[in-house]
Amino acid sequence: MPDGGLDQVLSYLKTHRDQHVSEVSDFLRIPSVSALSSHKGDVARAAEWLKNRLVAAGFQDARLDSTPGNPVVVASGPQRPDRPTVLVYGHYDVQPVDPLSSWRHDPFDPTVEDNILYARGASDDKGQVFMQLIAAEAWQKAGSLPVNVKFLFEGEEEIGSVHLSQYIREHQTDLTADLAVISDTPMYADGYPSISYGLRGLVSLEITVHGPFQDLHSGVYGGAVMNPAHALARLIASLHDEDGRVRVAHFYDDVEPLSDEERAALARLPFDPAVYRDDVQVPALFGETGYSTLERIWARPTLEVNGMWSGFTGEGQKTIIPSTAHAKITCRLVPHQRPEQIIEAVSEHLRQHLPPGVRLTISPGEGAPGSITPLNHPAVKAAERAIEAIYHTPASYIRMGGSIPVVVDFQETLGIPTLLLGFALPNENFHAPNEHFHLDNFYRGAETVAALWAYLGDRHE
Amino acid sequence: MPDGGLDQVLSYLKTHRDQHVSEVSDFLRIPSVSALSSHKGDVARAAEWLKNRLVAAGFQDARLDSTPGNPVVVASGPQRPDRPTVLVYGHYDVQPVDPLSSWRHDPFDPTVEDNILYARGASDDKGQVFMQLIAAEAWQKAGSLPVNVKFLFEGEEEIGSVHLSQYIREHQTDLTADLAVISDTPMYADGYPSISYGLRGLVSLEITVHGPFQDLHSGVYGGAVMNPAHALARLIASLHDEDGRVRVAHFYDDVEPLSDEERAALARLPFDPAVYRDDVQVPALFGETGYSTLERIWARPTLEVNGMWSGFTGEGQKTIIPSTAHAKITCRLVPHQRPEQIIEAVSEHLRQHLPPGVRLTISPGEGAPGSITPLNHPAVKAAERAIEAIYHTPASYIRMGGSIPVVVDFQETLGIPTLLLGFALPNENFHAPNEHFHLDNFYRGAETVAALWAYLGDRHE
Repeated sequence: MPDGGLDQVLSYLKTHRDQHVSEVSDFLRIPSVSALSSHKGDVARAAEWLKNRLVAAGFQDARLDSTPGNPVVVASGPQRPDRPTVLVYGHYDVQPVDPLSSWRHDPFDPTVEDNILYARGASDDKGQVFMQLIAAEAWQKAGSLPVNVKFLFEGEEEIGSVHLSQYIREHQTDLTADLAVISDTPMYADGYPSISYGLRGLVSLEITVHGPFQDLHSGVYGGAVMNPAHALARLIASLHDEDGRVRVAHFYDDVEPLSDEERAALARLPFDPAVYRDDVQVPALFGETGYSTLERIWARPTLEVNGMWSGFTGEGQKTIIPSTAHAKITCRLVPHQRPEQIIEAVSEHLRQHLPPGVRLTISPGEGAPGSITPLNHPAVKAAERAIEAIYHTPASYIRMGGSIPVVVDFQETLGIPTLLLGFALPNENFHAPNEHFHLDNFYRGAETVAALWAYLGDRHE
Repeated sequence: MPDGGLDQVLSYLKTHRDQHVSEVSDFLRIPSVSALSSHKGDVARAAEWLKNRLVAAGFQDARLDSTPGNPVVVASGPQRPDRPTVLVYGHYDVQPVDPLSSWRHDPFDPTVEDNILYARGASDDKGQVFMQLIAAEAWQKAGSLPVNVKFLFEGEEEIGSVHLSQYIREHQTDLTADLAVISDTPMYADGYPSISYGLRGLVSLEITVHGPFQDLHSGVYGGAVMNPAHALARLIASLHDEDGRVRVAHFYDDVEPLSDEERAALARLPFDPAVYRDDVQVPALFGETGYSTLERIWARPTLEVNGMWSGFTGEGQKTIIPSTAHAKITCRLVPHQRPEQIIEAVSEHLRQHLPPGVRLTISPGEGAPGSITPLNHPAVKAAERAIEAIYHTPASYIRMGGSIPVVVDFQETLGIPTLLLGFALPNENFHAPNEHFHLDNFYRGAETVAALWAYLGDRHE
């Protein structure tokens, strides 16, 4: 693919900016709130709009695939075997808008102010979906895409992607690709266009400590039995050492140490611990000794109690020894940690550390592994080059501390890595009132994606 | 007082047994449920009945004193300065009866079966109040009481004795006495008529560990901040050592060691740890090393978490780092421990052991000290003698693990010790369906009280 092709594509995108803002506004005007059944018809309309727009962009095979929930929109151009195939994922459903009174504009009447587009879905994820679409369209107008593209857009992301895993399993062959690309994440910060190359996984356990058959009078029985709340506290306290390290045997066995290159890349990111601390309003940050905050949240596994409860929690006082005590625990996993092994290691630790006089039950939940795209993967290199070409700044390499379930489906079902290339900014109010998207990143994001296809295609020419 | 007097009194009680059962049944027929406003009139009727019966027993000054709630019934015979004065406390209100369908008889239609009287209030506390009344009446019939008696019967015990402390403070002079006697407790077991000579006190604290300003996403922030649930678990775990001993500095400072005599008396009581363990259905009993179960629940202080909660406690999973974590803590105190000092010691321990990265707030509640009547107190000796005379078995010396608030009022406001001389059995279903009272203990209880007055009066003759 000659660079002339990319020039032509970028020029097309530049000259059509107003039209694209107008079109994405049409898309944003459809209140496709998946959480509310009253918007079922709107969700269907958004899917239809997206399909039609894909056809207009040159993807004649675009179609709606029905699921037990909202339809999946799929499309692909002609597939040339000498080209790498990229699966582009996004979602056309949006979050509810309440409290409506906190919005400065109608959330479904897209409004541009100071080069910022305000609307529900602007950054999460309709704006970024449309960015992907016009990048591909621009290549179609120029002749043909330098890579094979397959689009997979769902309408249930905001309600937990209820039917997507099954859809992917059932359409495994159709979805065959070399790489998935998702634009549904923020970049690290304004001016730091980012490649997210790693995500943490998740496992969960709910545990119950069982003491006496019912709550006991703490005067009559106090001193005679182990209090399940005390036993649970001891169990939870046993899970970490004073330095914030997880004390569970074998917990860190499969954790790959950060490479010097990664640590250096993370250290280059602007990060002010004092600002971060003030943002969350804690007296001090705290985490595993020997790692920076970014390393702790992106590249180290954690074990967190998400909830615990025992006994009387109402107003006033009830002098009981509780019958039971409960905790919900999740671990964030880094790549190579195996969910089932972590659940077993934590369970074994809990069994070993159970104080006398009580019984323990453990209910493990579903697990999902972490994922990582190696930094030397051609897609990472192509994305780096694309960011430098469009933003004139080096790409930032970031990871994300959370999980994106579809990435696990791509990894487990399709066997492909995912590149997270998002152009939102962290403070653009996804899921909150006054969601917005900086148009400069909308334009440059589409250009960066267009360049990515050029550089990804390069290696096959 | 010649023993002849007591013989005559006991003979009177024996010959009037049927009449007394009939009369107490009249009393029990009045549904004086203090918790239900619909029974307000019945509560007033029960007070009136009791006052009239006291007049009939020879206490012409019996009267109702109104309070902001239910009336207090008070009475006293002529006060002779050469005699000790005993304040007899009891309550004429009863617990609600639901579930009514679990009763084998109408709870307010007293029924005798196998020499057991079934009715709400039979053992708690109308039956025992009436026992006190007829013991005094028998002495009046015989001439005069060997001690000065003052009766104080309230109608709000089952709703927390809401107005009693204030009443006692306001009538301090009227209530002057040397000793309080209460028949509102069970004996240790059938065949073990008991003198309760000690009660534990109580202090409470509610604590909150404050972390981030709101719940945080455990993927985005997991690893960067101290989780308040972990911090609370560490705090709670720090409060006891592995042997069940409270680790708070100075917690045991004022605890008087059990005397050899007390330990021996406790060891004489029939107690089967395996039965006790099976009753509460725990895999093993647990408590402070070096003490028997009875010693632990009666004569050792404890620290118990009555409730704790943090984060998400609903069904399913919410992957958060909680913003706060809470615990309700109470300590049972033994005599000589000072409530305010224990609150301060526990608070100081919590402050000292607070993990980094979180803040702690402590809300102390009201405290009440424990109480004890020395075993060599003349009232204890007299009660021992009375039990031996009537039951032909040695008295059991027991303590109670819980608190009886009025005992604290007597101790703090009136400056007098309390003798708990109850004749109910532990399994007579106080507060539950099919409450009952063994008539044999009703008869012998009244006789024991009559004998107690004789032996208490002895020392002044």
